[in-house]
Amino acid sequence: MARVLTDEAIRGVLPMADVVTTMRMALRERAHGSLYAPPRWSLDVPDGSLVVTAGVAMGVGTMGFRAYETLGRGPGHEGLVAVWNAEAGRFDGCIIGHRVGLLRTAGINGVAAGALAREDASTLAVLGTGPQARQGARAVCAVRDIETVRVHSPTAEHRSGGAATSERRSREHRETFAERMPEKLGLEADAVTAHDGPEPAVRGADVVYCATDSEAPVLDTDWLDAGTHVHTLGPTRADGHELPTAVFDRADVLATDSLDQVAASDEVDGFVVDDWDERLVELGDLVTEGVERGSEAVTVFCSVGLAGTEVVLADRYLRELDREDR
Amino acid sequence: MARVLTDEAIRGVLPMADVVTTMRMALRERAHGSLYAPPRWSLDVPDGSLVVTAGVAMGVGTMGFRAYETLGRGPGHEGLVAVWNAEAGRFDGCIIGHRVGLLRTAGINGVAAGALAREDASTLAVLGTGPQARQGARAVCAVRDIETVRVHSPTAEHRSGGAATSERRSREHRETFAERMPEKLGLEADAVTAHDGPEPAVRGADVVYCATDSEAPVLDTDWLDAGTHVHTLGPTRADGHELPTAVFDRADVLATDSLDQVAASDEVDGFVVDDWDERLVELGDLVTEGVERGSEAVTVFCSVGLAGTEVVLADRYLRELDREDR
Repeated sequence: MARVLTDEAIRGVLPMADVVTTMRMALRERAHGSLYAPPRWSLDVPDGSLVVTAGVAMGVGTMGFRAYETLGRGPGHEGLVAVWNAEAGRFDGCIIGHRVGLLRTAGINGVAAGALAREDASTLAVLGTGPQARQGARAVCAVRDIETVRVHSPTAEHRSGGAATSERRSREHRETFAERMPEKLGLEADAVTAHDGPEPAVRGADVVYCATDSEAPVLDTDWLDAGTHVHTLGPTRADGHELPTAVFDRADVLATDSLDQVAASDEVDGFVVDDWDERLVELGDLVTEGVERGSEAVTVFCSVGLAGTEVVLADRYLRELDREDR
Repeated sequence: MARVLTDEAIRGVLPMADVVTTMRMALRERAHGSLYAPPRWSLDVPDGSLVVTAGVAMGVGTMGFRAYETLGRGPGHEGLVAVWNAEAGRFDGCIIGHRVGLLRTAGINGVAAGALAREDASTLAVLGTGPQARQGARAVCAVRDIETVRVHSPTAEHRSGGAATSERRSREHRETFAERMPEKLGLEADAVTAHDGPEPAVRGADVVYCATDSEAPVLDTDWLDAGTHVHTLGPTRADGHELPTAVFDRADVLATDSLDQVAASDEVDGFVVDDWDERLVELGDLVTEGVERGSEAVTVFCSVGLAGTEVVLADRYLRELDREDR
């Protein structure tokens, strides 16, 4: 029976650990060649575009796509993920909203933290307080025994209201994050602290999770200790990114979920790491072959969005809800 | 409010005349350049593919896509059409099933019959008895005062059960068509007659509507009187088609809904009409500029599937249902 679900219907259905496990399976399929996806595809309209990113995972036997538009955000701006059985062709359903895309990104970052962060990592710095930052924190906590989380959100001065208002809002966001996240992360009530600057949040952290939309660097590479693991969403643009290029230069292991997607970005705009084609490795391969990382190594994961993973996760939700109904 | 509908929900919502009018508007947009669509796009899996055909119509202000798989047919094999507002980006909804695709094809053929069939056309021959044949007959009857319909369905010998069984089934299909269609076409009870061969169905008909999946010609060009208008679905393959090439050679006006789609087919497989790039005209241009056709002219319309038209029709259904709810 095909199902049509909204974001609300999948909320709380899977623990984050299961989302990470599902994405790890998808990345293994990627490494073994059974998950494949054509380049992202878009229909351009005057003020934006409609984007379709499709993929098939023959291991779990699912195919489909995620579709979303870039014209705006907020209520009414829904995308959808549609899923078919890849062998029989049966339409299994679709999930309307943005949650699947959000969770698969967090889940993939969870896989990356599981592969690249030190086993004894216990302190997490989060830069950003939006949905990606919150879900990313959950994903890291699902794979490492994190005891302390420090959050800072850079002030988004380009937003309306001027610098003072922006600074006040950013502080409110950080404080709300510190107040609400302990329960969601399964931590003590005082385990999450808000910081007014990035440096005290980042210094001494074992894992640094960057999930801002900043086009200027939000941290300094000197703040990173040996042995730190860093996550970044993107980079999608060569000319402005939340991480300074020095972080990429310093990385002993530099990984991404999709070299194809990186190559596609590079064609459009150049990629922030010049020598990426020599240095960047795919997470799927790291998961399959294992990683030898010394305790002093700095590791960086660039989350660019492996196509097809949204379909695998949506399929997992549809199966889970079928199971609950039986 | 976004709506999620199934085929059942749109059944009977619009008279065929409104479907034809909606498609005529889309074809006008095409001629004026405000309806555009990238080439059809597909994800190949071992036994078939997932196809996405997208488009935007800036006149009505809608964008979206139709998606369907080619792995099988029947229950569970649902496609979907998803629709967004092309200016604001708002998700307007989706229609799950195949009916929108079916009706837009019929609607476009209705526009073609309105542009190309003689004004006094009163006799319609239908070859085929499937959903495309039934909706196609409705579309022709929506634009011309058809009084008599003659149906023949070629025997599909490649189907299971042997030649005798196939012949019996084809006869049953024709008889069911003759019995049930008068009411759906708004004709007298005896206005639709079933014929055991194609020749008595086709000879003397003013309009011939071919909607079979035959790879061999289902009629002979000598059976066509001067002044006849012919519809064919496709052609999609150079090496086997329901019309003999002599019909295309004989056409005084040879039209299609999408030269882009024809060019794409030609690249893959060659197109059944060798000199199509000199002779084939677009229906949108005929609708906009008008057609001068002598009463003796033979006209042929090749319905290949203009991308974006499904989105315009789905948008129309969503608006109509919004209107009914108010």
